[in-house]
Amino acid sequence: MLTTDPATIIDDPDVSVVVELIGGRSTAREIVLESLRRGKAVVTANKDLLAYDGREILATAAAHGTEVFFEASVAAGTPVIRPLHSSLASDHITTIRGILNGTTNYILTRMTHDGCDYATALAEAQANGFAEKDPLDDVDGRDAMRKLAVLCLVAFGTAVDPEEIYMEGISRVDKRDIEYAHALGYVIKLVATGRDHGGAVELRVHPTLLPAGHPLARVDGSFNSIMVEGDFVGPLTFMGRGAGGNATATAVVADILEAVHHREKGVASLRLKEYRRVPVVPIDEVAVPYYVRFTARDHPGVLGQIAEAFGRHGVNLRSVIQKPAPQSDDGQAELVFLTGATQDKHIQAALAELMQHPELCQIANVIRVDTEV
Amino acid sequence: MLTTDPATIIDDPDVSVVVELIGGRSTAREIVLESLRRGKAVVTANKDLLAYDGREILATAAAHGTEVFFEASVAAGTPVIRPLHSSLASDHITTIRGILNGTTNYILTRMTHDGCDYATALAEAQANGFAEKDPLDDVDGRDAMRKLAVLCLVAFGTAVDPEEIYMEGISRVDKRDIEYAHALGYVIKLVATGRDHGGAVELRVHPTLLPAGHPLARVDGSFNSIMVEGDFVGPLTFMGRGAGGNATATAVVADILEAVHHREKGVASLRLKEYRRVPVVPIDEVAVPYYVRFTARDHPGVLGQIAEAFGRHGVNLRSVIQKPAPQSDDGQAELVFLTGATQDKHIQAALAELMQHPELCQIANVIRVDTEV
Repeated sequence: MLTTDPATIIDDPDVSVVVELIGGRSTAREIVLESLRRGKAVVTANKDLLAYDGREILATAAAHGTEVFFEASVAAGTPVIRPLHSSLASDHITTIRGILNGTTNYILTRMTHDGCDYATALAEAQANGFAEKDPLDDVDGRDAMRKLAVLCLVAFGTAVDPEEIYMEGISRVDKRDIEYAHALGYVIKLVATGRDHGGAVELRVHPTLLPAGHPLARVDGSFNSIMVEGDFVGPLTFMGRGAGGNATATAVVADILEAVHHREKGVASLRLKEYRRVPVVPIDEVAVPYYVRFTARDHPGVLGQIAEAFGRHGVNLRSVIQKPAPQSDDGQAELVFLTGATQDKHIQAALAELMQHPELCQIANVIRVDTEV
Repeated sequence: MLTTDPATIIDDPDVSVVVELIGGRSTAREIVLESLRRGKAVVTANKDLLAYDGREILATAAAHGTEVFFEASVAAGTPVIRPLHSSLASDHITTIRGILNGTTNYILTRMTHDGCDYATALAEAQANGFAEKDPLDDVDGRDAMRKLAVLCLVAFGTAVDPEEIYMEGISRVDKRDIEYAHALGYVIKLVATGRDHGGAVELRVHPTLLPAGHPLARVDGSFNSIMVEGDFVGPLTFMGRGAGGNATATAVVADILEAVHHREKGVASLRLKEYRRVPVVPIDEVAVPYYVRFTARDHPGVLGQIAEAFGRHGVNLRSVIQKPAPQSDDGQAELVFLTGATQDKHIQAALAELMQHPELCQIANVIRVDTEV
């Protein structure tokens, strides 16, 4: 039976499993919630819905003695939701880090390995069909942010307001940043990071310099990869295609099989009874190393003045590169600094001070670094 | 209650889940089978038992309406058995490739990155506690071979006689092979490979030259990694600690939780009803590229004579390196060849012919290559 009216499905008592692949938070939300209220099991790939309404959806399922399955909502067919629910049930998960968006990873890979610029690589990703429906959601980090909220729910048993997640896209990453990162032994990736701090969770999505030997630094093209750190199991890495009809179908069909099996046997999965709701740690309290690139007057005192400004705000410096700016005969130089772990507010204070002297230097880019392998 | 008599546990009707962590195929086998016959669920980490008696054990569990869980038998806490059973239930798995033994991977990593020789790296692995109870089982490939048999059962639904699996250890891998491999763009790993050919399965464990960019080439130290290729989901990679009490405990406790949950609800997992039993493809019918290193007289005709011998047996050559042998003033050279994909029998025939002329050249090593990323 083909129908365009969701009520035909929801009202039919013979339908015991509803598969929602509409996406978005309006119609899909009503279909999912109403199906659960009627005691039907739901299989969905809807990361948007799970990110914003996950706690309500899981509570509704539990209240009506049924289940919701959503393996396809993160990294398509790559198993991560189910392993977190079942295989790691006894571990306390402390950290999640992942490359969760194939489009941006494809773009950054092309920029890194083939010297493409951002615009060319983006156009290519769109032509190759890697982009999600709205490419802006990919490149501004929103798609990865939603997936991180879903992983936070499953890995930390914690619901957050996704709007509190710090999010920074890749559009400001320049070929020169990729080259300087390479010279310093790093690769730039769009990384989603989550850490459980107990009463709060650290959640952030932004371009990140990763050491070239980092497992996530080597995930190329449109692949996704998720690293999970458990207190007993240690670091685990899952990698696979992050998108595409076939890979998504694998996850959806596995969920349907489990849903049907559970219906037949009248059993539910082993799941958390309750999900915490905690705040996200404000980004300006998160301490990480930073990469900062300046364009500056090419004369001896500049490096010292920048270093002093950092010093006044307690920012330690680890590495410095100074080079003449490309195609510039007017005495401009580029200066690149790697700092020690610093709270965002101290970096911002140092930069604000330097910005008062535009004749001295200008900030070309600021990118966070993750040195933990 | 502490007891040294297994019957105390098996005969107790209040015990519904038996956890077997003894290892081996004698006492453990009887405990597992008898527990299943009594309708108890069994959790085991016993790869030896599963590899040789897996089909009988799974059939016994099914016949008595109970279950056996064995996530810890392969790659400790790294989820792979459960994802294959559940997340990939709808996919046809065509290929498994893995680094399944931490000891040998640690040794090869030290030899590759730090220039250690084999004996030093082995002694170090033993001192660091990476070795299994019997180090010979690690270095001769037997440990990886058993795990491959377990993965074959789960991924291909196929039981084999593990003794039919071709197995070659790492003790003959020399530092010079690692250096030549590097010069050719490869890394040497002990790789377990499985392919489903329908009426037979290809299963083999041996040192393998992997392209430096291959996901398994980058798995270092005592880590394990398993790549699985599904017809819909594409390539998936799982990576984590392959051994250690804590990591193993994660898998065992997750299995116990699921076993208990299923007992309470009176349900069994979604599993295959039957496991096929098929032969293993004989190794001399498997076609792969080969790396062959010779020591030879350093004079002009030798390279041509070796190349001709390969040619007579239909072996294509892809790359050649010729260098003076190290610390040799007696006119000895080393010649390294990379061949195209060739059946083992053709390589052996060409080598047998060359071995009749020891004054011309001697075979220093022969290692299989995997060029598929």
